[in-house]
Amino acid sequence: MKPLVSIIMGSTSDLPILKKAADFLDGMDVPFEMHALSAHRTPAEVEKFASEAKDRGIRVIIAAAGMAAALPGVIAAMTPLPVIGVPVSSTLDGRDALLSIVQMPPGIPVATVAIDGALNAAVLAVQIMSLADKDLAERYEKFRLSLSEKIVKANRDLADVKYRMKTN
Amino acid sequence: MKPLVSIIMGSTSDLPILKKAADFLDGMDVPFEMHALSAHRTPAEVEKFASEAKDRGIRVIIAAAGMAAALPGVIAAMTPLPVIGVPVSSTLDGRDALLSIVQMPPGIPVATVAIDGALNAAVLAVQIMSLADKDLAERYEKFRLSLSEKIVKANRDLADVKYRMKTN
Amino acid sequence: MKPLVSIIMGSTSDLPILKKAADFLDGMDVPFEMHALSAHRTPAEVEKFASEAKDRGIRVIIAAAGMAAALPGVIAAMTPLPVIGVPVSSTLDGRDALLSIVQMPPGIPVATVAIDGALNAAVLAVQIMSLADKDLAERYEKFRLSLSEKIVKANRDLADVKYRMKTN
Amino acid sequence: MKPLVSIIMGSTSDLPILKKAADFLDGMDVPFEMHALSAHRTPAEVEKFASEAKDRGIRVIIAAAGMAAALPGVIAAMTPLPVIGVPVSSTLDGRDALLSIVQMPPGIPVATVAIDGALNAAVLAVQIMSLADKDLAERYEKFRLSLSEKIVKANRDLADVKYRMKTN
Amino acid sequence: MKPLVSIIMGSTSDLPILKKAADFLDGMDVPFEMHALSAHRTPAEVEKFASEAKDRGIRVIIAAAGMAAALPGVIAAMTPLPVIGVPVSSTLDGRDALLSIVQMPPGIPVATVAIDGALNAAVLAVQIMSLADKDLAERYEKFRLSLSEKIVKANRDLADVKYRMKTN
Amino acid sequence: MKPLVSIIMGSTSDLPILKKAADFLDGMDVPFEMHALSAHRTPAEVEKFASEAKDRGIRVIIAAAGMAAALPGVIAAMTPLPVIGVPVSSTLDGRDALLSIVQMPPGIPVATVAIDGALNAAVLAVQIMSLADKDLAERYEKFRLSLSEKIVKANRDLADVKYRMKTN
Amino acid sequence: MKPLVSIIMGSTSDLPILKKAADFLDGMDVPFEMHALSAHRTPAEVEKFASEAKDRGIRVIIAAAGMAAALPGVIAAMTPLPVIGVPVSSTLDGRDALLSIVQMPPGIPVATVAIDGALNAAVLAVQIMSLADKDLAERYEKFRLSLSEKIVKANRDLADVKYRMKTN
Amino acid sequence: MKPLVSIIMGSTSDLPILKKAADFLDGMDVPFEMHALSAHRTPAEVEKFASEAKDRGIRVIIAAAGMAAALPGVIAAMTPLPVIGVPVSSTLDGRDALLSIVQMPPGIPVATVAIDGALNAAVLAVQIMSLADKDLAERYEKFRLSLSEKIVKANRDLADVKYRMKTN
Repeated sequence: MKPLVSIIMGSTSDLPILKKAADFLDGMDVPFEMHALSAHRTPAEVEKFASEAKDRGIRVIIAAAGMAAALPGVIAAMTPLPVIGVPVSSTLDGRDALLSIVQMPPGIPVATVAIDGALNAAVLAVQIMSLADKDLAERYEKFRLSLSEKIVKANRDLADVKYRMKTN
Repeated sequence: MKPLVSIIMGSTSDLPILKKAADFLDGMDVPFEMHALSAHRTPAEVEKFASEAKDRGIRVIIAAAGMAAALPGVIAAMTPLPVIGVPVSSTLDGRDALLSIVQMPPGIPVATVAIDGALNAAVLAVQIMSLADKDLAERYEKFRLSLSEKIVKANRDLADVKYRMKTN
Repeated sequence: MKPLVSIIMGSTSDLPILKKAADFLDGMDVPFEMHALSAHRTPAEVEKFASEAKDRGIRVIIAAAGMAAALPGVIAAMTPLPVIGVPVSSTLDGRDALLSIVQMPPGIPVATVAIDGALNAAVLAVQIMSLADKDLAERYEKFRLSLSEKIVKANRDLADVKYRMKTN
Repeated sequence: MKPLVSIIMGSTSDLPILKKAADFLDGMDVPFEMHALSAHRTPAEVEKFASEAKDRGIRVIIAAAGMAAALPGVIAAMTPLPVIGVPVSSTLDGRDALLSIVQMPPGIPVATVAIDGALNAAVLAVQIMSLADKDLAERYEKFRLSLSEKIVKANRDLADVKYRMKTN
Repeated sequence: MKPLVSIIMGSTSDLPILKKAADFLDGMDVPFEMHALSAHRTPAEVEKFASEAKDRGIRVIIAAAGMAAALPGVIAAMTPLPVIGVPVSSTLDGRDALLSIVQMPPGIPVATVAIDGALNAAVLAVQIMSLADKDLAERYEKFRLSLSEKIVKANRDLADVKYRMKTN
Repeated sequence: MKPLVSIIMGSTSDLPILKKAADFLDGMDVPFEMHALSAHRTPAEVEKFASEAKDRGIRVIIAAAGMAAALPGVIAAMTPLPVIGVPVSSTLDGRDALLSIVQMPPGIPVATVAIDGALNAAVLAVQIMSLADKDLAERYEKFRLSLSEKIVKANRDLADVKYRMKTN
Repeated sequence: MKPLVSIIMGSTSDLPILKKAADFLDGMDVPFEMHALSAHRTPAEVEKFASEAKDRGIRVIIAAAGMAAALPGVIAAMTPLPVIGVPVSSTLDGRDALLSIVQMPPGIPVATVAIDGALNAAVLAVQIMSLADKDLAERYEKFRLSLSEKIVKANRDLADVKYRMKTN
Repeated sequence: MKPLVSIIMGSTSDLPILKKAADFLDGMDVPFEMHALSAHRTPAEVEKFASEAKDRGIRVIIAAAGMAAALPGVIAAMTPLPVIGVPVSSTLDGRDALLSIVQMPPGIPVATVAIDGALNAAVLAVQIMSLADKDLAERYEKFRLSLSEKIVKANRDLADVKYRMKTN
């Protein structure tokens, strides 16, 4: 099946963080691909990827990078597709990556999510694709319900916790 | 014509910043609406808006707020639509708004753009809607060309600037 | 006994931090309840809780959350009760949570305490309730004395410490 | 009429910011007093004020200060009354004052509001006193309604704004 | 005369800042060129420039940009020449630009100077080229002397200042 | 009369800030001198000054600088005299200067005062010299009284202010 | 022997950091005392200490505290003696303590050293007392020599290090 | 063989970070030397080193330091050679060192690389020396190729990773 989402990382050391994005897309039955590409070390590969992505059928690009995280912005510069940026916290708690990704100049946006927020990048990609895919929209709606159910259950479990505190 | 994009602001004092988003959508022939809603002062109105937006045909929501900018996240909590957040720089250069918007918990993303980056919020909305609207995709492609042409022209003008520096 | 204080956490992972608030209220004989509610994942439950809290007899609400910590402000938007916010340090040392909680817009305050400062949230709740409860005011006064006695005793112990340093 | 709220400022240069607190208390018919006291320049006066405030009938103290803003914490150390701290933005955008006020050690809380957030300090004081004053609670409830009405009206006005944008 | 230094700016609005670099190179008789190129808006022009710069005889590149300042790093990725980065303070006092430029990943350095420090970028370029150009090294040495002479003279003038203070 | 305090500035543009230090020393009858010296532009003059200061009878050195403010630390490295550092807010609100001055390595302290806090630098110098000069100690004690009297008077004036607020 | 330096800590948990100050004073044969006093938990003890310190013969006070570190400033407010402040890094890497200590208002300085820089606080105390104590000045001069000798020796050892790197 | 690059560290505790610079220069066959020198503890040695470096044949200086990192700037003040500064992250995640190094005043630049970015300091030194050394330029070009090859290979390996994720 042809991939609809591209997950791009500046370095394979970001894989453990991006696994959450991959797992979510898997769970939503969204075909995806993963690539390691560096704006600073493989600029030619980045350009090839970005300029061809739309014609290959990719609909949303998720790009994660740390430090002076130019990757999401550079990809966004070369494709009309929506690009979601994930700041990775390799240094300075990820503040350098956050500012490098979110503070894009007028005209070329990167849809930035939280530091190390790869899951939310995948959720956002699914939200975007759900606009034109009713089946996906339904699967996504179930995920949202599960989110709130988890908290509702945690809330019920708290009653026991408190009881135990009292009797200790 | 029914609006496809909702531009929501926490306060009408944010209107001068959001005008750039409105102008861009106008230029792209994307029908939109604007609302002033506050997560903290009109929570009931926010809930009504967010829970009905999708059924009214809205496809993307742009939400701007300053300080403890809960608005984009609270809207995202109540709609499956993609929500784009614009941090407004009313205090602390906008760093409080940026962190309040971008650092969303797992499961509920807000697609965050630069501080005061309302134009990019609208561009991102157009990128998202272009996935399922070929005419819009073409209009957007022209905008992208105009962006680079503006710099290319500025580059040509620089030659004169330097000449004048030399002769001064 | 009906609870007078509600301790609300955005996630049960915040329980170890909030235990200090619960223990203090226990020690002051203030009945309390605990709930896990998320502004972003269970907005309906948050609204139900906040709009009913006052009529159920709750007098002060303590709300703790991390990252884009909208919970305290969103609760404050839906109740006239005083809301005390505890920023939790899950990311960025808690600075994101601090700014998301303290920088509330005019009209809707959240009484913010230190990052991870759950004990002080409970102390503040007791200070507030002591205004109309002489017995509680007396129990609280004893706690204040114990605070200073602990330091006074630590001060006496320091003399030994120094002596040992000298003879080493 | 005997004052119920004390508004304390580290310097009379903070008066324009604190006027918003005074005006709000006036509007709520809450008698208050104002003092200029400095933790660093008039420590004896601060001590006298703080140790006598409760017996004089004061119920809530609002303390504002900038830079190394020790005033709110020092007052909190000498009174069992709830102390609300207002960080004033004289330097570093008020971040120094915010951290000096909010990061109180365990046992002695200061209820901190936003940088320059004097109005919210007064609102919080009213919330606290409303717990034992039904008339005040009703006046406060009206204020909350007016807050949301202002936004609802602003929202209606936005329709015109947009119309004018379109026709320009 | 063929240019030896390229001054690249992300936007012509950075020209007033970069003029100091141009003036210094002029004063040192170093031929230079200026271009407006944007990593995000004219990526193809950036690539063409960066990949050809060395063969055209350029020896040092000065690149200035603001916000998510990817330009210096992207140029550095495509040329073996030393690239000097100037963070421009368009937002957040230039901290976003500083981190976006200086925090380059291992292997691809950008020689970063102070925020808005265009003069120092040109001085550094001259230091680098002086290693292989004795005449330039001598001209540069004179500039260094003038720097210290300016302070030495300012020091002498201070005596008068103080005298006037005394007699006022 | 031989100077006892040296006021050193990295640039004469810092003179308006340092004037407050000079005026205070004048008022305390402490003879002082002022010099413009730069750790980066006149290192030889800095060394000559620092290594001779003690033998010339100087007792305390006040050094002010902005940006990468090496001056106070470099002087401290070359003299056994106490060095008081004043961070000047030329960029980044003075945070760069503050960290460059206060974060000295073990063994070589700089007594750092607030950003632009030149008056306090002079007060600290007077406190230090008062340890061995009873007359100066008395003059200083009067200054301290005047500080608190100013606030006490401001406090009295506040009563009028409030009255006028009421009647408006 | 009567103490000349008082080392004050906000909490005995700061003792490991302050031990470096105590050890240095020991090594310099400067008699000192240590106290645990809290501006927020034992304000009466702080006032008693600060107002009596000078008459007891104390010449310099070292005060360390973390978080909203009011202790050094509050002591400085009540004594004419020089007060040296040590920010302790219990939270936010110590930035809250640094700003709470260094940003003192005009008139009441605290001589601030680096975060956790207790050794430098003691060195500064010795520099100050050396102004009127020739023997101490000589002992201090030896310490300064030992500082540079340690680096000079480390420099010699580096030659071996490099040799080993080469042959590996 | 005479060294062409000097690697200077403020303390031998920085050696593990600087080893990456040494290893890279070794791999590029660039002779280098290493010294431990402190701007604050051995100012005389720093001056001797900096003023003689050029005449000894050194072409580029790499200087690393932490905290109030004056070393790179002080060396730059005393030599016309290009100085590359490496901020070391001993405190505050290295932000103090970064600002102390990069924010140099006009006239005396330090070419700053990332926090702990010693490898990039060495790469930059090689880029600078390659301008006048064709053999070195060729060795450096091979290093650049190896950088991109490593990512290209990592990209190929990702296919397997994804396969394994799918089948789990």
